[in-house]
Amino acid sequence: MNDYSHEKFLDLNVFRGVGEDPVYHPPVVTGRPREWPLDQWADAPRDLGFSDFARYQWRGLRMLKDPETQASYHDLLWELRPRTIVELGVYGGGSLVWFRDLAKIMGIDCQVIGIDKDLSRCQIPASERSNISLYEADCAELETFEPLRDAAHPLIFIDDAHANTFNIMKWAVDHLLEQGDYFIIEDMIPYWHRYSPKLLAEYLAAFRDVLTMDMVYANASSQLDRGVFRRSVVKE
Amino acid sequence: MNDYSHEKFLDLNVFRGVGEDPVYHPPVVTGRPREWPLDQWADAPRDLGFSDFARYQWRGLRMLKDPETQASYHDLLWELRPRTIVELGVYGGGSLVWFRDLAKIMGIDCQVIGIDKDLSRCQIPASERSNISLYEADCAELETFEPLRDAAHPLIFIDDAHANTFNIMKWAVDHLLEQGDYFIIEDMIPYWHRYSPKLLAEYLAAFRDVLTMDMVYANASSQLDRGVFRRSVVKE
Amino acid sequence: MNDYSHEKFLDLNVFRGVGEDPVYHPPVVTGRPREWPLDQWADAPRDLGFSDFARYQWRGLRMLKDPETQASYHDLLWELRPRTIVELGVYGGGSLVWFRDLAKIMGIDCQVIGIDKDLSRCQIPASERSNISLYEADCAELETFEPLRDAAHPLIFIDDAHANTFNIMKWAVDHLLEQGDYFIIEDMIPYWHRYSPKLLAEYLAAFRDVLTMDMVYANASSQLDRGVFRRSVVKE
Amino acid sequence: MNDYSHEKFLDLNVFRGVGEDPVYHPPVVTGRPREWPLDQWADAPRDLGFSDFARYQWRGLRMLKDPETQASYHDLLWELRPRTIVELGVYGGGSLVWFRDLAKIMGIDCQVIGIDKDLSRCQIPASERSNISLYEADCAELETFEPLRDAAHPLIFIDDAHANTFNIMKWAVDHLLEQGDYFIIEDMIPYWHRYSPKLLAEYLAAFRDVLTMDMVYANASSQLDRGVFRRSVVKE
Amino acid sequence: MNDYSHEKFLDLNVFRGVGEDPVYHPPVVTGRPREWPLDQWADAPRDLGFSDFARYQWRGLRMLKDPETQASYHDLLWELRPRTIVELGVYGGGSLVWFRDLAKIMGIDCQVIGIDKDLSRCQIPASERSNISLYEADCAELETFEPLRDAAHPLIFIDDAHANTFNIMKWAVDHLLEQGDYFIIEDMIPYWHRYSPKLLAEYLAAFRDVLTMDMVYANASSQLDRGVFRRSVVKE
Amino acid sequence: MNDYSHEKFLDLNVFRGVGEDPVYHPPVVTGRPREWPLDQWADAPRDLGFSDFARYQWRGLRMLKDPETQASYHDLLWELRPRTIVELGVYGGGSLVWFRDLAKIMGIDCQVIGIDKDLSRCQIPASERSNISLYEADCAELETFEPLRDAAHPLIFIDDAHANTFNIMKWAVDHLLEQGDYFIIEDMIPYWHRYSPKLLAEYLAAFRDVLTMDMVYANASSQLDRGVFRRSVVKE
Repeated sequence: MNDYSHEKFLDLNVFRGVGEDPVYHPPVVTGRPREWPLDQWADAPRDLGFSDFARYQWRGLRMLKDPETQASYHDLLWELRPRTIVELGVYGGGSLVWFRDLAKIMGIDCQVIGIDKDLSRCQIPASERSNISLYEADCAELETFEPLRDAAHPLIFIDDAHANTFNIMKWAVDHLLEQGDYFIIEDMIPYWHRYSPKLLAEYLAAFRDVLTMDMVYANASSQLDRGVFRRSVVKE
Repeated sequence: MNDYSHEKFLDLNVFRGVGEDPVYHPPVVTGRPREWPLDQWADAPRDLGFSDFARYQWRGLRMLKDPETQASYHDLLWELRPRTIVELGVYGGGSLVWFRDLAKIMGIDCQVIGIDKDLSRCQIPASERSNISLYEADCAELETFEPLRDAAHPLIFIDDAHANTFNIMKWAVDHLLEQGDYFIIEDMIPYWHRYSPKLLAEYLAAFRDVLTMDMVYANASSQLDRGVFRRSVVKE
Repeated sequence: MNDYSHEKFLDLNVFRGVGEDPVYHPPVVTGRPREWPLDQWADAPRDLGFSDFARYQWRGLRMLKDPETQASYHDLLWELRPRTIVELGVYGGGSLVWFRDLAKIMGIDCQVIGIDKDLSRCQIPASERSNISLYEADCAELETFEPLRDAAHPLIFIDDAHANTFNIMKWAVDHLLEQGDYFIIEDMIPYWHRYSPKLLAEYLAAFRDVLTMDMVYANASSQLDRGVFRRSVVKE
Repeated sequence: MNDYSHEKFLDLNVFRGVGEDPVYHPPVVTGRPREWPLDQWADAPRDLGFSDFARYQWRGLRMLKDPETQASYHDLLWELRPRTIVELGVYGGGSLVWFRDLAKIMGIDCQVIGIDKDLSRCQIPASERSNISLYEADCAELETFEPLRDAAHPLIFIDDAHANTFNIMKWAVDHLLEQGDYFIIEDMIPYWHRYSPKLLAEYLAAFRDVLTMDMVYANASSQLDRGVFRRSVVKE
Repeated sequence: MNDYSHEKFLDLNVFRGVGEDPVYHPPVVTGRPREWPLDQWADAPRDLGFSDFARYQWRGLRMLKDPETQASYHDLLWELRPRTIVELGVYGGGSLVWFRDLAKIMGIDCQVIGIDKDLSRCQIPASERSNISLYEADCAELETFEPLRDAAHPLIFIDDAHANTFNIMKWAVDHLLEQGDYFIIEDMIPYWHRYSPKLLAEYLAAFRDVLTMDMVYANASSQLDRGVFRRSVVKE
Repeated sequence: MNDYSHEKFLDLNVFRGVGEDPVYHPPVVTGRPREWPLDQWADAPRDLGFSDFARYQWRGLRMLKDPETQASYHDLLWELRPRTIVELGVYGGGSLVWFRDLAKIMGIDCQVIGIDKDLSRCQIPASERSNISLYEADCAELETFEPLRDAAHPLIFIDDAHANTFNIMKWAVDHLLEQGDYFIIEDMIPYWHRYSPKLLAEYLAAFRDVLTMDMVYANASSQLDRGVFRRSVVKE
């Protein structure tokens, strides 16, 4: 244990909601045996502290989508059979591998594209990068997305970086999304609804002619809550 | 709509907790549009009735393990890398396909074996049966399990049929499980704990020398609640 | 404590929701004195584990209707003043004695009839059987109910055995119930609504011309939840 | 509907927690049919407003003990077989009739004594007063209780009037209670614990040598919460 | 610790909901250090028992309005800028000082008037009585309020004594309240709604032509719940 | 309502948790009258949507401390009587005015210092700035705090900007805090505990010799939850 005067403190806010450590570590039972004796079965403690967000994983990579959200994306992939999935915000990269695996096992020919301004935390091993493309770029800069114009459709575009979101949504509507494609905002809707309710409603309403909310997926998990939008008109 | 006098009623209890229909049907939004207009975004209803157990699926097959339980089994497969998974109770068969897919994508050479006294409800298409074996047999008859003696280890044995459970557990300990193998009772522990608390505690305690409860998985989802047991001693 | 290898395990599911032991045993405080000292009054623990279903009793007999349900039946007996109460599913027999006592103290001349395929668990002492009739018969066989045709009205018919329920309901409507009589399904509606929602709604709708749900009692306790039906048309 | 200027308003606080009307009125379904059609079964509303305290009754008399409390008193009567039950606070009188009926059906020779400073609200019909004695007296005056000295034991003394409670408890300990008798304070413990926590703890602790809290009944219902005390030492 | 036989017990009900002790005492941490060491930070207990009502204070005086209620009154004072605040029920007097301070810091020239039948418990120091008037009188006697006829408007009249409330409300409407003035009933509405629902609705409806409920403040805190009324017609 | 193509979208994340609008706007009742008629009193809706964080104010300025937090700071000011309060993060400035008013009415000679990298959103009118100092500076730069070295003690230092927090805490311990002074982290502890549990515990433990958690205030409101620290050793 260090003394405060020798410590060099990182700014915890810099992690922006994804935690201190992009590497998955398996849970460790502390203060009691993992192997609980059966003649004391009824006395076993119920809460081992494993409810922490950090415990979700996919094949040894940290996974920042919870099980209900995974089930919802499964259903969306099964229904839409997307040829391209774009996700802004890569972090450890677990969800990119998971999207790729899921599409593969469904027999979908799908490219998964991850964009982040800092790929140094990405944990995807070199051997696991088939059908996955990674770009280090500032998600807030719209020119970052120009190369996506050639992507195959149907397409799912996921904002998990939460910077400049509505201008990116505008760009995507104007230059990328075809009818039936999805634009998804993860995690942030409840926060914006609490702190900026007027702007949020005004911004979403501005897209009334080109996007609709898909009630099935927008009500299916707390991470997708009210943030699943579908391109409703053919792009000219 | 029929009249009661012309109806031939099935006994709803016969389904034993797995529902009337082994086929998965996608959710249908009733009484409101699935495509919700964005200029009325804040007024969208929250509850569309999709919380029903029947909505879980895996690649178009009904899936009677909920998302939290799926995440827990993912972790167990990743940690144990089982060569055999036996599940008593097949119903539509979704979870067998899911176990097979999961093991495959993890690169595990694993046989999945489903046993049920009525396979007529099984929905697994012929093209999807690689590495899956199905046996129609009475789970309550111990001779049903004799052919399992040659199964590869590590092995996970899942009771999802809930008939004669503890005698099957005894047979498995005596004839099948090696050290580190798992015997899992899904769904029933809370019911038995409510209605037969003394017998349940007594039966589990009887296995105190040969099984332990694995606190990590036994606290990870409500369907696995306090029902994940690990063979603690080498079988002689 | 026995070893698993010498144990002969009963199938816990065979009890079908009514528990291992039809005999009522009074609660025993474990791990602390039942007589708590008053100079430590504020520190007394709140949860002694007595919330278990098994603690309900009527005059020393186990009682599988909870207090809210008892209060609801009290109100129904007071309003209807039934001459016959039929209950499928006897188990320990506590509720038959309770129905008999309740009717007696209300001054109602009422016969209580219990039917079960196994009366060996019944705990009603011989001295307590006035106005109570017991039949050992298979509730699932409709001919079991033929002798009921002579029963006095008003009549309450309670399904607490949960086998072949809707065919029994059909038989009762055709051959037994007069206008104002009740058919009650205890405990099972929420389960059937979860696992077989389509069949349940379809089966109930089939009776639309001959039964209605009584909103007062169908909303009064969780055990009676949405399962209290009233014969709405005079039997011809 | 009257105008405020012609109204003569009663002081609602005078009812002291027992409501405006000592007469029981059966529930009336408003705004929807009591007979709900079965082809709309799944759409039936769940909340009919019947959760109100005023709906509890015993044989047509309002009953200010809720079902869980009734079940707890049943158990206490069955265990103790009291010869005398004293209740301070009569109001409509429903609970006196209920205690009498319960003791009778248990075959206990028991006198039920109700004391209230205003018996004008009592609804017990003359024909129902066997084994019930009513005294109009000020519960706060200790001389009110002198006639109880001859009461048979075992005895249960219930404070449901909540005036001068602890001095009455002192009198009861000194002059009435024998070992094993009960002194019960209904309803008020949580309020006193919130508003006068120090005095409450101090007052109860003062009785440490002569009373204990009975953990079984003191944890069995919210109306009896932490207010069931048992005479622990033989009265000299 | 005293023995019960030497104790002279106060009647806890006499305090009528405001507790045993009008003096504020700061919280004391028991059974653990108030200064918790930071190397055990995550293990610190969460519940120190400070949620008790008795902990609210204003500048060292007990304060029987909770923080949400204080915030609501702040908003009402800021909107109405009252010249007079009358409160029936003084107890320790904390809320009178708080109203006075709040009005002063808002630059409102406001007289605060407290009326109670027993001012002996009032803790307001002599040096803190500017703009506060105290009257010892029986709130239930309408002549008590005659001197208020000269009070400046706008005016807020708060019933926190809960005796004869509706006749006082009638007097206030007839002789005191001008259009826009408020009559507020604190704390009691939920209790009266539970125990005397018919009389409460009838009494309030009688005032339909002269008062309305102000939905903003009547929904803003549990102590003000549905009890904030506004004079809707000019007094002639 | 604008079209998305003409809209210039702000980045909602830039507001960092304080909302779109630093100006306080009073609540407006929509879709129903603010003046509710008393003859429909019992039917009044309960939820008017006023629970939003944005509704808290102090004398017409938005107030981003909720009522429970205000009550806790009141208690801390009353106990500590601070001569200096430093708050990082000014936003609209409501809490600075509130701290100043509170100290003044308590008769404390206290300077309130607000530091923010953008003071353009500050709403404090020029006439309200007595005893309040505002500095526009980057909270993340430690040299920002040098001028504080002369501040009077006791002192409360509040981090409400959440950038570089632990290095600021280190600077404060080394150069500013005297024994008994407070360092408070508002709002962020639960988030950091969820996303960076290991680093948070490690960082706090590093201060074990110089700070303790004050259990009274650290358990008193959700905004202060586990984030109130007290300088435990005299600064040399």
